Amino acid sequence: SREFNAAEHQHVRYNPLKDEWILVSPHRCLRPWSGHSEPPPQEQPPDPNNPLKAGAVRANGQRNPNYTSTYVFPNDFPALLERGPEPPQSDHPLFQARQARGTCRVMCFHPNSAVSIPLMSVEEILSVVEEWVNQTKELGRRYTWVQIFENKGNVMGCSNPHPHCQIWASSFLPNEGRIKDRCQKEYYTKYNKTLLVEYLEMEMEKKERIVIQNTEWVALVPYWATWPFETMVLPINGGPQRLTDLNDQQKKGLAEIIKLLTTKYDNLFSCSFPYSMGFHGAPTGPDHTAGDSPHWLLHAIYLPPLLRSATVKKFMVGYEMLAQSQRDLTPEQAAEKLRNCNHLVHYKNKQ
Amino acid sequence: SREFNAAEHQHVRYNPLKDEWILVSPHRCLRPWSGHSEPPPQEQPPDPNNPLKAGAVRANGQRNPNYTSTYVFPNDFPALLERGPEPPQSDHPLFQARQARGTCRVMCFHPNSAVSIPLMSVEEILSVVEEWVNQTKELGRRYTWVQIFENKGNVMGCSNPHPHCQIWASSFLPNEGRIKDRCQKEYYTKYNKTLLVEYLEMEMEKKERIVIQNTEWVALVPYWATWPFETMVLPINGGPQRLTDLNDQQKKGLAEIIKLLTTKYDNLFSCSFPYSMGFHGAPTGPDHTAGDSPHWLLHAIYLPPLLRSATVKKFMVGYEMLAQSQRDLTPEQAAEKLRNCNHLVHYKNKQ
Ligand SMILES: O=P(O)(O)O[C@H]1O[C@H](CO)[C@@H](O)[C@H](O)[C@H]1O
Ligand SMILES: O=P(O)(O)O[C@H]1O[C@H](CO)[C@@H](O)[C@H](O)[C@H]1O
Repeated sequence: SREFNAAEHQHVRYNPLKDEWILVSPHRCLRPWSGHSEPPPQEQPPDPNNPLKAGAVRANGQRNPNYTSTYVFPNDFPALLERGPEPPQSDHPLFQARQARGTCRVMCFHPNSAVSIPLMSVEEILSVVEEWVNQTKELGRRYTWVQIFENKGNVMGCSNPHPHCQIWASSFLPNEGRIKDRCQKEYYTKYNKTLLVEYLEMEMEKKERIVIQNTEWVALVPYWATWPFETMVLPINGGPQRLTDLNDQQKKGLAEIIKLLTTKYDNLFSCSFPYSMGFHGAPTGPDHTAGDSPHWLLHAIYLPPLLRSATVKKFMVGYEMLAQSQRDLTPEQAAEKLRNCNHLVHYKNKQ
Repeated sequence: SREFNAAEHQHVRYNPLKDEWILVSPHRCLRPWSGHSEPPPQEQPPDPNNPLKAGAVRANGQRNPNYTSTYVFPNDFPALLERGPEPPQSDHPLFQARQARGTCRVMCFHPNSAVSIPLMSVEEILSVVEEWVNQTKELGRRYTWVQIFENKGNVMGCSNPHPHCQIWASSFLPNEGRIKDRCQKEYYTKYNKTLLVEYLEMEMEKKERIVIQNTEWVALVPYWATWPFETMVLPINGGPQRLTDLNDQQKKGLAEIIKLLTTKYDNLFSCSFPYSMGFHGAPTGPDHTAGDSPHWLLHAIYLPPLLRSATVKKFMVGYEMLAQSQRDLTPEQAAEKLRNCNHLVHYKNKQ
């Protein structure tokens, strides 16, 4: 019997942040593709009624200012409202409902509808980072969880190509935050080390899953990545637990690494690379104070659906929904492809 | 302050099978839709090279027999192989890999590429049910988990419109099976009742989430449904733990309710309704025997992505991936819409 080679032989890997496993089937990369193709991502013509534009009138009749950098406003169709009647005490363990309070905001990154993060300057991205910090500070005073997320591209359900993200803050700790909080706490109790600090140290030695790094941040494909080109962006210094812990160096470094990583993404398949991205940090709200969650390390997550080209995505369906996530390409192979992608010149700016 | 009304006011609901929550925002049903539309589901012309057809030659050079009912063969590009080298013992808790063994099969439902489950007769669907039972029996001798699943429609990554499902059997208990096993076991230990038996009894009294039923089975929208028109199909009698526990009455009743439910689905938006569906039952393999898992109740799950029409789906992206599943329409509203849909005449068979 031959020797095990992770790039060749099937296995399952453990995700210690979420206490779950993923099936890795590298031999399946040979499969020919005959399935569904997405329509090629179109350069959408600017929509004259685009409600995110500077000066536009939105659904509720309000007019946006002529903003020149970032601009934040309340989502006109929020999934979470600040108040509402409380559900009655549930009387059976199988029919449990609880109160949910929150707020949803939209944040435009830039007045120009035609740019995206990788096409913005580091200074412009720095304004975005600074606004993410402000929003987390303000909403984190009242709410337990402040979820910043960007859905990019039609295939990720993004309803408007104008560069923007959303911020949903809630009175409850959502599933993902709850599980990561628990797993990191258990690790900290058991080993007296911060899970992700230890993980990052080991990855910086191993090097095989690192995509790019600067003096403050590392972007890598996690050992337990589920999406083909999933990455995680981790801070090297000082163990920030939340976005509000970042110093000026870290903010600037974050803006820079985001530009480099998303340029690589766009260059991988020469398209505006779709993804959902966001930040995870320690819970917030009145019960929390800076530095109180040493088991946490702030990190950004990029979840891009593309698998083989601009039009072929990985479907997380049948087996994945009913049993377990599965991937063909190994995380190490994905990291190598991204590492080898140009991050200095965006494909749109090439002659 | 007004009284709480689940059809109007936001709340979170608990899924006791998976120990997670879902955000319900019924007030958001008023949101106008300006996002991505799927291409309308096309009636694909029969592909002369369709490898699932009776008599076709497949990628590996083998020829299918001229089958007239169901036909099962090994997947030519399996994500799981029966054997392979074992990964070495992992030496760190953050880098855990384990052996995965298994097998992947494809099961054609019918020789006619143009039919789908709701267009088949109850007798034809009964042959499918019987083959599901056979496969579970055979593969369940060796493997811990036998996952039967059907991906239906382009939007669910289905690469071939010929009516078929897949069967992936594995040496490991996948995440979904592991979590449901744990949650049902904990409930059984605590209350000395089978979670889903108790749940079904209460739903049959409440009636508000029931879509359709016959003497053996109930199809309902679970209280904790995440997808807009998600349903669960549960057996009324005898508490079968696995597909292999079904008696003839139950098999026939299952074929019938599947036809009725999928006819409702197709009629809801007058299209071949896409979904991933599959079965969950107690773990199998050499360590298990019939009747050894009284905390389990066998059930089928339908996870359909459509939200508003044949071309507008619910995207489980940004907030859902990074924080928690969210729905607008309540499970009760979804059940009512499905209940009111015709299940006797398929829209394609109407004059
Ligand atoms: O095997 P298929 O139909 O080609 O593939 C489809 O189902 C599989 C199992 O859910 C998924 O892993 C694939 O991403 C999907 O495209
Ligand atoms: O708010 P949007 O961009 O219209 O909506 C999009 O993102 C939301 C948050 O991830 C999802 O709930 C929606 O399904 C998706 O279409």
